Amino acid sequence: MTPGSATQQAPAPQILARCRDLVRPALVQAVQRLHPWHTEMAAFSLGWVAADGSPVPGSQGKGVRQALALLGAEAAGAPAEEAVVGAVAVELIHVFSLLHDDIMDGDETRRQRATVWKEYGTGPAILAGDALFALAVQTLAEAPGVHGAVAVRHLAAMLTDLVRGQAEDLLFETRPWTGPEAVSPQEYRSMAEHKTGALLGCAAGLGGVLAGAPASTVDALAGAGRHLGVAFQAVDDLLGIWGDPEVTGKPVHGDLRRLKKTYPVLAALAAGHPAARRLAALLGTGDPLDAAGARRAADLVEEAGGRTATLAEAQQHLDSARRSLESVPLAPAALGDILALLPFLVDRTM
Amino acid sequence: MTPGSATQQAPAPQILARCRDLVRPALVQAVQRLHPWHTEMAAFSLGWVAADGSPVPGSQGKGVRQALALLGAEAAGAPAEEAVVGAVAVELIHVFSLLHDDIMDGDETRRQRATVWKEYGTGPAILAGDALFALAVQTLAEAPGVHGAVAVRHLAAMLTDLVRGQAEDLLFETRPWTGPEAVSPQEYRSMAEHKTGALLGCAAGLGGVLAGAPASTVDALAGAGRHLGVAFQAVDDLLGIWGDPEVTGKPVHGDLRRLKKTYPVLAALAAGHPAARRLAALLGTGDPLDAAGARRAADLVEEAGGRTATLAEAQQHLDSARRSLESVPLAPAALGDILALLPFLVDRTM
Repeated sequence: MTPGSATQQAPAPQILARCRDLVRPALVQAVQRLHPWHTEMAAFSLGWVAADGSPVPGSQGKGVRQALALLGAEAAGAPAEEAVVGAVAVELIHVFSLLHDDIMDGDETRRQRATVWKEYGTGPAILAGDALFALAVQTLAEAPGVHGAVAVRHLAAMLTDLVRGQAEDLLFETRPWTGPEAVSPQEYRSMAEHKTGALLGCAAGLGGVLAGAPASTVDALAGAGRHLGVAFQAVDDLLGIWGDPEVTGKPVHGDLRRLKKTYPVLAALAAGHPAARRLAALLGTGDPLDAAGARRAADLVEEAGGRTATLAEAQQHLDSARRSLESVPLAPAALGDILALLPFLVDRTM
Repeated sequence: MTPGSATQQAPAPQILARCRDLVRPALVQAVQRLHPWHTEMAAFSLGWVAADGSPVPGSQGKGVRQALALLGAEAAGAPAEEAVVGAVAVELIHVFSLLHDDIMDGDETRRQRATVWKEYGTGPAILAGDALFALAVQTLAEAPGVHGAVAVRHLAAMLTDLVRGQAEDLLFETRPWTGPEAVSPQEYRSMAEHKTGALLGCAAGLGGVLAGAPASTVDALAGAGRHLGVAFQAVDDLLGIWGDPEVTGKPVHGDLRRLKKTYPVLAALAAGHPAARRLAALLGTGDPLDAAGARRAADLVEEAGGRTATLAEAQQHLDSARRSLESVPLAPAALGDILALLPFLVDRTM
């Protein structure tokens, strides 16, 4: 029997909306504690307002991280409200990481809008990121109750993982496509665990921590979030090559044109298929690819099995996430909600 | 009777060296937890190694912040060792803030060496700063004993102050020299309290927290550190105009050439002296000053009383720091050490 099957399972968008509604007032309140300049940049980055300060209704993100925090608490048997402070902290860290990563990656647009550094300047965007980072730590450190200190420890450990993942990703750029110095799919997975998995794992784990759950439950929730993060990254990589620009807001074959090292390409190159050698030759010139070159590269990645391998990678981590959740006793309704979210979040291409 | 006068008071450089020796192993150990790339940038920024990785003996800073943490603990009656974890955290935050501020301010050199962003690139320097920030939080959050959670709360509150101060400083640049929108000396003092005072205050306060001192003692130590920070900033402003380039490593009249809003200039402009009007006209063109213009501006700042006002500002905050320390019972030997440090740290021009 699938958990939650006895009662009517809410669809994923409804679950996410319920969580956003619970978190929104506290998130607004937190952001308003910042210097007004940083409140403005945070509201812009969260999709609440346009660059001119006018409200943009309904343009916010899905709020995966805040949802995992609340559902983690519910799964551990506590009311979702117990984890709102953790949900706020992980959302603030998410925005912090977007602000800084967009500078490092030179990304000028995100969700069809200018990135913060492009709109406000590099220096102000660095500082706004720092402000969000500090606010996240402060929010958890000031949390009432006995679990705040443990929660801060989880947040801090996640932050070092997150930064490590971004460092690994940046350093991949300088490494060759082939030979002993090439980036292996395993190294890429480790990077994704740090860069994407750590924050999702922390979100779900914090839910457990703030609910006062035993370590085994916290570990199971955090493990599920981490696996979801890796699956999420794999799907993101698929979208970066084969995604519909109308849906993703990114140029067709964007990651290939920019010669970005992603799982499908690395898996293709490691496959030993004849197409892998042709792909390596195409990428190895080091020049950004034009439209025809990128299309050819996408075909070669697919021919060498890179697309299939990435789909399998996503599926495998989704299965691991489910197994992690099923390894401990959890409240059935919340478990049902988390299980409903898992495929929804990675189903964007699969 | 001056505290410490009964026994031989150690000279300030010796006090600082003792503290550095106590903190160094833990600081090295902390920095080695980072991704190797970030360990390298941190070691470079701390003055331990050159850009090529070769050791640079004796080139480290004075270590004011770590000293305040240790002496704060001793003043509260605990061994200095109790506060090493706090000393490490504040030093890491200091380096984080230098890394990010140097990018925002476009500073290419620091202590006669390239800044980290100039040496390693902007993106890597942003990320290394983030790594140090995260490590500082993690170091305190993982501290053994009962005081870690309170210590993290102090650190988080300081971080939001620090970021607020940098925001205020950046926004001063866009404001006029005269008129109702001009930056007042009071606003500048508030900025300095946040940007420089918060970290020094946190350092001394953390010493008290980690020693298990009562809130009144922690507040007195933190207050003294904050006042020292404001005095420190005032002296830094004097050095930025009248400092000897051989000693400061900065160009003569550097802050004036760059039209930087500092306390001496703002105090001069607010003085109502005839020279203030001539100074406003000179600065108001908005063009960076040449050598002759900067010399003339420095003379006008002095004539309008800006130099005297800044010396008085530094002296007043030094006195306030002393009074804050004398408002609570502290261990005489450590109090003597802190009192010996105060004039030494601001005596660079006075």
